[in-house]
Amino acid sequence: MKRLALGLAMGACFAAFGTVAGGEPAAAASAQSRKVIVDDDGFGIAQWLLLQAPDVDVLGIAVVSGDVWRDEGVAHALRGVEIAHRTDVPVLKGAVYPLLNSEKLTDRWESLYGKLVWKGAWMRQWVEPTAQSTPPYHAADVVPDLPEGNPTTKASDESAVLFMIRKVHEFPGQVTIIATGPMTDLALAQRLDPSFAGLAKELVYMGGSFNPRQVRDDVAAAQFAREFENSPRREFNFRFDPEAASIVLRAPWKRIVSVPADPSTATELTPAFLHRLAAANPAFADAVRKKEPGFPLWDEIAAAVWLDPKLITRSEDLYVDVNSQFGAGYGDTLSWRPGYQPDMDEQKEVVVRTVDVPKMEQAIVDLLSRKLPAGK
Amino acid sequence: MKRLALGLAMGACFAAFGTVAGGEPAAAASAQSRKVIVDDDGFGIAQWLLLQAPDVDVLGIAVVSGDVWRDEGVAHALRGVEIAHRTDVPVLKGAVYPLLNSEKLTDRWESLYGKLVWKGAWMRQWVEPTAQSTPPYHAADVVPDLPEGNPTTKASDESAVLFMIRKVHEFPGQVTIIATGPMTDLALAQRLDPSFAGLAKELVYMGGSFNPRQVRDDVAAAQFAREFENSPRREFNFRFDPEAASIVLRAPWKRIVSVPADPSTATELTPAFLHRLAAANPAFADAVRKKEPGFPLWDEIAAAVWLDPKLITRSEDLYVDVNSQFGAGYGDTLSWRPGYQPDMDEQKEVVVRTVDVPKMEQAIVDLLSRKLPAGK
Repeated sequence: MKRLALGLAMGACFAAFGTVAGGEPAAAASAQSRKVIVDDDGFGIAQWLLLQAPDVDVLGIAVVSGDVWRDEGVAHALRGVEIAHRTDVPVLKGAVYPLLNSEKLTDRWESLYGKLVWKGAWMRQWVEPTAQSTPPYHAADVVPDLPEGNPTTKASDESAVLFMIRKVHEFPGQVTIIATGPMTDLALAQRLDPSFAGLAKELVYMGGSFNPRQVRDDVAAAQFAREFENSPRREFNFRFDPEAASIVLRAPWKRIVSVPADPSTATELTPAFLHRLAAANPAFADAVRKKEPGFPLWDEIAAAVWLDPKLITRSEDLYVDVNSQFGAGYGDTLSWRPGYQPDMDEQKEVVVRTVDVPKMEQAIVDLLSRKLPAGK
Repeated sequence: MKRLALGLAMGACFAAFGTVAGGEPAAAASAQSRKVIVDDDGFGIAQWLLLQAPDVDVLGIAVVSGDVWRDEGVAHALRGVEIAHRTDVPVLKGAVYPLLNSEKLTDRWESLYGKLVWKGAWMRQWVEPTAQSTPPYHAADVVPDLPEGNPTTKASDESAVLFMIRKVHEFPGQVTIIATGPMTDLALAQRLDPSFAGLAKELVYMGGSFNPRQVRDDVAAAQFAREFENSPRREFNFRFDPEAASIVLRAPWKRIVSVPADPSTATELTPAFLHRLAAANPAFADAVRKKEPGFPLWDEIAAAVWLDPKLITRSEDLYVDVNSQFGAGYGDTLSWRPGYQPDMDEQKEVVVRTVDVPKMEQAIVDLLSRKLPAGK
């Protein structure tokens, strides 16, 4: 009750984030809890933040193909909720294949327009020597052993798409969708049920790229800059399923918050930050130590700014869509200042340009520090 | 049992079509019945043929937006099954909106590439004086009074997309999908469940246009020729949702039979043929008399050649896809003789080029002549 009162005193729009390290166990959702569904092409620290956050009710964790095939992402998600002692939260299977894009189409596109730096589940090898490892290439239904250990629990029998539709009807105007992978599931939900987007509270997504620049001076940052330095409008989540992203960004959401590649260039999962995280909570330490360093904190920014919008240091209102023409710009981010948009149903979004990185890192440490609920 | 034995003696692939006029009532589905789901942007004689055919089990009638909005099509379908005394067959609501195409996008396309002859639910008026009436233009959720009377029954609560997925799992390898409207529902089904197409027995569809020519010498035929004479590869079902059609035609069906515009130019719902139909069975007479003459028998060909493949007088094996590029050719039919296809997952189809029209007309009359089952 104390925590609830504090949360209300600070205003209804976000919880008392960062003030509860070592406090009560997570997962004690109250009636006032903020409801969220995460849809991602895997599972990472971002999901743990949401699971650990006070007064947040993670209704479900949906998984879609992207960085890895859906089934591999589902295994990561199951293991992730097991580690967090949150097997009460269902893991839901989303789409295996993008709407129109495919591995074959991507091969043909590359032969016309040049190699993509990152292709997710379709990646066979880096073009240049790269510090990051290449995930093993395999068929859609193959699930390799996971570094963090294989899960013993199972995914829900319910489709991720149908689950999301069901939940926005059950809690109209209350469910935030945080999408940090390709938008195939959300596009299917919107076309199956035209009221889907309008019944959600908001969409918060990681995707798109506006004009990022390399901020950090290290090998990983320089190598990740390959993704945007000659293609500033290209970003993997949009590029993997451009048609889905265009459908979703033109749907009538009440509110959209976009976390593009831009703010992520000031962030990095460094060995030092991983060490801080491992030291924060023995429950996560093993799994954290097995994480590969170097990655920008793409999805973590999306989760963190939803938990605490005050982490946003600069944002901009823009209309956004995705180029779905199969040409050199396939999947590129399209954006317009208000007044310039073509009025093809594209929506105005809050586009996050920069975040307070030290404060965000501390908030991440604080959330991971919280005691896990009892049980597995 | 007699009918069943006859059906088996004639071979398992089709029923004793055309030999049972005035015979036993329809709707006595046996275990050996051929299972079919129709997905259409309305309801017409084609559905009645399937409902009246012996040894055919119509599992459900799905409705998608196209010629009219989904909800108006659903009303026609409900009324159609009421007239046929087949309210045992569920009517299922499909997609309201195409995947990416929209009325706004169509307006912009027309301003770049010229006017479409027919735009279905988005049609406001014919460009030229036209014998066919223009359906009233209205919002997606408006259902005008129907000429054949308004239905008193209701659609199923189950989504058409989920129903189709459920049925191909329930009867693997046994369910034919006859699609005679835009393919939005089928595309959603395939992306929700990648095993959907492979679990069906086959896809039979009306859509696409190869190189049709005007065959009949009358005003209606000349006016319908406007649709293809300067755009031989354009056909409404593909053009309303090109992306969906491309997804569906590149899915791994066991078998695809295509009924494009081409064979339809030799057919017409003339006043004389309507008179024959009205005389065939008093149960259908009122509704038949209210039908507007002049239309080619697009969907009826698809139903008829599935019921009796011997009606096909010429067909060709071709690989087929749909142009989903937003340019002058958006929605156009793409086809290749075997060996020329690009291998982008497009499938080989049996493309129907001509049918035996007098024999088909007689078969239609015979089927409508059959006694209706008792009951409403």
